[in-house]
Amino acid sequence: MSRQIHLGLFMLGTGNHVAGWRMPGAHDSFQNLQQCIEVARIAERGKFDLLFAGDGYGAQPSQHPSYTVRLDPVPMFAAIATATTHIGLGATASTTYNDPYTIARSFASLDHISNGRAGWNAVTTAHRASGQHFGRQHPDHEKRYEIAAEFIAVVKELWDCWDDDAIQANHETGVYIDWSKVHPLNHHGAHFDVEGVLNIGRSPQGHPIVLQAGGSDAGQELAAATADVVFSAVQEFDGAQRAYASLKQRVVRRGRSPDEVCVLPGVMPIVAETDAKAMALLNQLQSFVDSSVASEMLYARLNIHATAENLDKPLPDDMPLPDGGHTFARNMIAKARRENLTMRDLYNLVAAARGHLVVCGSPKTIADTFEKWFTEGAADGFNILPPYFPGGLSDFVDMVVPELQTRGLFRKEYSGTTLRDHFGLARPAPKRAGSPTSSAA
Amino acid sequence: MSRQIHLGLFMLGTGNHVAGWRMPGAHDSFQNLQQCIEVARIAERGKFDLLFAGDGYGAQPSQHPSYTVRLDPVPMFAAIATATTHIGLGATASTTYNDPYTIARSFASLDHISNGRAGWNAVTTAHRASGQHFGRQHPDHEKRYEIAAEFIAVVKELWDCWDDDAIQANHETGVYIDWSKVHPLNHHGAHFDVEGVLNIGRSPQGHPIVLQAGGSDAGQELAAATADVVFSAVQEFDGAQRAYASLKQRVVRRGRSPDEVCVLPGVMPIVAETDAKAMALLNQLQSFVDSSVASEMLYARLNIHATAENLDKPLPDDMPLPDGGHTFARNMIAKARRENLTMRDLYNLVAAARGHLVVCGSPKTIADTFEKWFTEGAADGFNILPPYFPGGLSDFVDMVVPELQTRGLFRKEYSGTTLRDHFGLARPAPKRAGSPTSSAA
Repeated sequence: MSRQIHLGLFMLGTGNHVAGWRMPGAHDSFQNLQQCIEVARIAERGKFDLLFAGDGYGAQPSQHPSYTVRLDPVPMFAAIATATTHIGLGATASTTYNDPYTIARSFASLDHISNGRAGWNAVTTAHRASGQHFGRQHPDHEKRYEIAAEFIAVVKELWDCWDDDAIQANHETGVYIDWSKVHPLNHHGAHFDVEGVLNIGRSPQGHPIVLQAGGSDAGQELAAATADVVFSAVQEFDGAQRAYASLKQRVVRRGRSPDEVCVLPGVMPIVAETDAKAMALLNQLQSFVDSSVASEMLYARLNIHATAENLDKPLPDDMPLPDGGHTFARNMIAKARRENLTMRDLYNLVAAARGHLVVCGSPKTIADTFEKWFTEGAADGFNILPPYFPGGLSDFVDMVVPELQTRGLFRKEYSGTTLRDHFGLARPAPKRAGSPTSSAA
Repeated sequence: MSRQIHLGLFMLGTGNHVAGWRMPGAHDSFQNLQQCIEVARIAERGKFDLLFAGDGYGAQPSQHPSYTVRLDPVPMFAAIATATTHIGLGATASTTYNDPYTIARSFASLDHISNGRAGWNAVTTAHRASGQHFGRQHPDHEKRYEIAAEFIAVVKELWDCWDDDAIQANHETGVYIDWSKVHPLNHHGAHFDVEGVLNIGRSPQGHPIVLQAGGSDAGQELAAATADVVFSAVQEFDGAQRAYASLKQRVVRRGRSPDEVCVLPGVMPIVAETDAKAMALLNQLQSFVDSSVASEMLYARLNIHATAENLDKPLPDDMPLPDGGHTFARNMIAKARRENLTMRDLYNLVAAARGHLVVCGSPKTIADTFEKWFTEGAADGFNILPPYFPGGLSDFVDMVVPELQTRGLFRKEYSGTTLRDHFGLARPAPKRAGSPTSSAA
C-alpha cells in the first residue's frame, strides 16, 4: 500500500480555540466522560489513528480556561477504550513528576485494557511552577531532558520484564507463572535506581508506542532516539519542511530508519462548505474571545505585556524568550518579525490557535494544504486540533476526511486493531528472551 | 430504614483461593478487562455497595500467583465505570510510593468518570522490597503511618481546592472560571510541601470516600481518624467483636460518630445448596493447591519454614513476627495456639483463604453467620472474597443475597447512585467556601 496520512485528534479541554466552548451547542467541560466518549466515537468514525490528550499541573488564569480542569488522561482513556474498538489512545505523562515504575505499569495496563491501543506522550513538563505541587525544585531544561532520557529507557526495560508466555495458568500442572521467563530489572543510573519486576505482564503491543512533542534541540534529540510519533508546532510550510528534514536526519543519525518515526504537525482546521463560510466561522469564533484572557495568554506564552500603547506597533527588538515552551515562543516571534505582525495580530493568533497552524477553508482547500505538506516532505500526517467539540471535529470528519479518502491519501477502513498496526510499527520482541518478534494477537 | 448490611467485593486476581483459577470454567487472568467487567456486573446485579481491588508492587513467587500481574486499579475501575451504573469502585493506592497531588487528581478523576462512585483504599505498603522499585529506602512501620496521616490530609485539602460552582462556563459573559472560588493550597508539613491548585474541579462526591485496611494499632488509629470504611481481617466471632468495639471506640475518641465508619470483615464464602455440597466444593478447591506454593506463602506471610519434620507438629513457642502484615500474622498465630493447629492446618488455612474467615455452607448457614455478626456487634457488613471468578461470586449473588434480602438485612434495590449514598455518608461541604452541604447531583 502507498504511504498514507496519519491523523491524531488533540482532544484536550473544550477544543483548541480559547473561546470555542462559547459556540452554540459546543461542549463546555472537560470533566464530562460522556462528552469525551462522543468525541472519541466521532474520531473513530473518521478512522483517525489516535486520540491524544495533553496534560499538565496546576491552574493559572493565563491558561486556556478549560485546560485547567481536566480528567487524568490514563483513566479517561481507559474508560474511552470500552466505548471504542480501534482508535489509539495517547495519554500524556510527565517524566519529571512521576516514577518510571508507576508509569510503566499504568501504560501497560492501558494497553491491556484497550487490547493494544495505548500510547505514552512523554513530556518533561515545561511549566516552572509545577514543582510547587510536589515539594520539589523544578529542574532546568537540560536536566529535565537528561532525566527524561533515562526515565523512558527504564520504562521500556520494565515493559520487557515479562516474556509473552511467562504467565502460563496451566490448569493441568498448576503452574501459573514460569519464573524462568520473568526478568527482574537491576537499573542504577544517574537519576533512577529501579530493581525488581513490573507488577503486570507484557502488554498486547509489547511496548505501548511512545509519542513526543518537545521542539527544542534536546527535545528533538530525545524524540529521534526514543519516539515512534512526534507532534510538532509549526506555522508555515517552509519551516515545517525544515523541521521535518531535521528530525528525520536526527533519526537516521541514531541508527534508525526515518520511517520508524512519524511527524505530525498540529493543525487547527476551520472547515465549512466554502472558503467564505469558513472565514465567517473563524470570525464568529474570534468574536467570543475575551480580551483579558488573550492578554494573559500572550504574557504567559510569549512574555509580552500588551497595552493600549503597544497594541498596534511591531514587536520590540529586545524580546527575551519566556521560561518554558521555547519552541512555541521562538516560532511565534520569528513569524511576527517575518510578517511584520503587530501585538494585536499576535494576540489574535495566540487566541485563535495557540501557536499552531490554522487551516481555514473548504474541504478542498484543506485537503490541498494537507496533500502538499504530506507529499513535499513537511509531514507524515497531522495532529488535528478542532476549535471546539463536537462540531469542529464532526465537520472535519464529514467533509475533509472523505476528500482525503477520495484522493487515496487516507485509509477508508482500519487494517488492524492495535495502535502499532495503524502506524505500521512492528511489535518489539522481548529483549531478554531472544525469541523472534511475535505478532500482536 | 433499619440498619442494613454493606457488601464489598474483593475482586483482586483470579479470586481469593490460591488455586481457584484451576476450577473448571474459572477466570485465570487478572489482566483481562472483559472478565473484570463480567465480575463487576454480577456484583452490581447482587446490589453490592462496592468493588474493591487491593494493590502492591513487584512480583514474588511467594505471592498468590495471580496477584503478581494485575491491572492498575484506577484505570481498571475507570473502564468498569462505563459498564456499570451504581456499584462503588474502591481502588488501592499507596501513601508511601505516590505523591498526594497525583493521587488527589487520579481519584477525583475516577469520581467524575463514575458519576460519584470512587473510593480510595489508602495503604502504606507493608512489603519491604517495594522500595527497590522506586530507588528509596522502605520506611519503617511507624514512619509509614506518620506519612500516611499527612498524605491523606493533604489529599482531602486538594479535593477542596475548587468550590462546586467555581467552573461557570458562562456563555453570556465568557467567564469560564470564577477564580474567587478557587483556593490554592499552601501546605508545609513534616513530609510534604504542596502548594497550588489541583488540576481538576470538585468531584461529584466532594471527596471520594476513604477506605482503610490496616489492622495494627497505628492502622486502627489512622482509620478512626480518616476512614469511611474499614476492611478487617478476623478469624472468629469473639475476636471480630472485640476488634469492632475497639475501632468504634477509637472513632468516638476522635470526635466522630461511630456510624460514620463502617467495619467490613473479609469473608471467603464457599456456598452450595447444602452444607455437605459446600464442604465438597472446598475439598475440590484444596485439591488444586500445589504444596510448594503453599509453603512459600506460609513462609512469606508467617515466617514459618514448613518441612517434612515439623509439618504435623504444633507451632514452636518462639515464633518471631514476620516483617510487614503484622495483624494477619498475629491473628493466625493466635488462632493456631488457641485451636492447637499444626503447621499443616495452618498451611491449609493460609492456602484456602489467606487468613480471612472462611464461611462454608448453604445459603442459610452463611446468612445465619452474617446475621449473628451483624446484629451482635462484630460487623457492619462484609468484604466478600470469592474463592474464584465468576462462579464463586455468582453462587453467592444467586443464593446468599436473596436469603439476606428475605431477612430484611440487605437492600433489594439501590436507593441512590453514589458510593456515599450506598453508605449513607453525607457529601462534605467545601471547607473554605462556608456554604452549606449540597447534595450530590
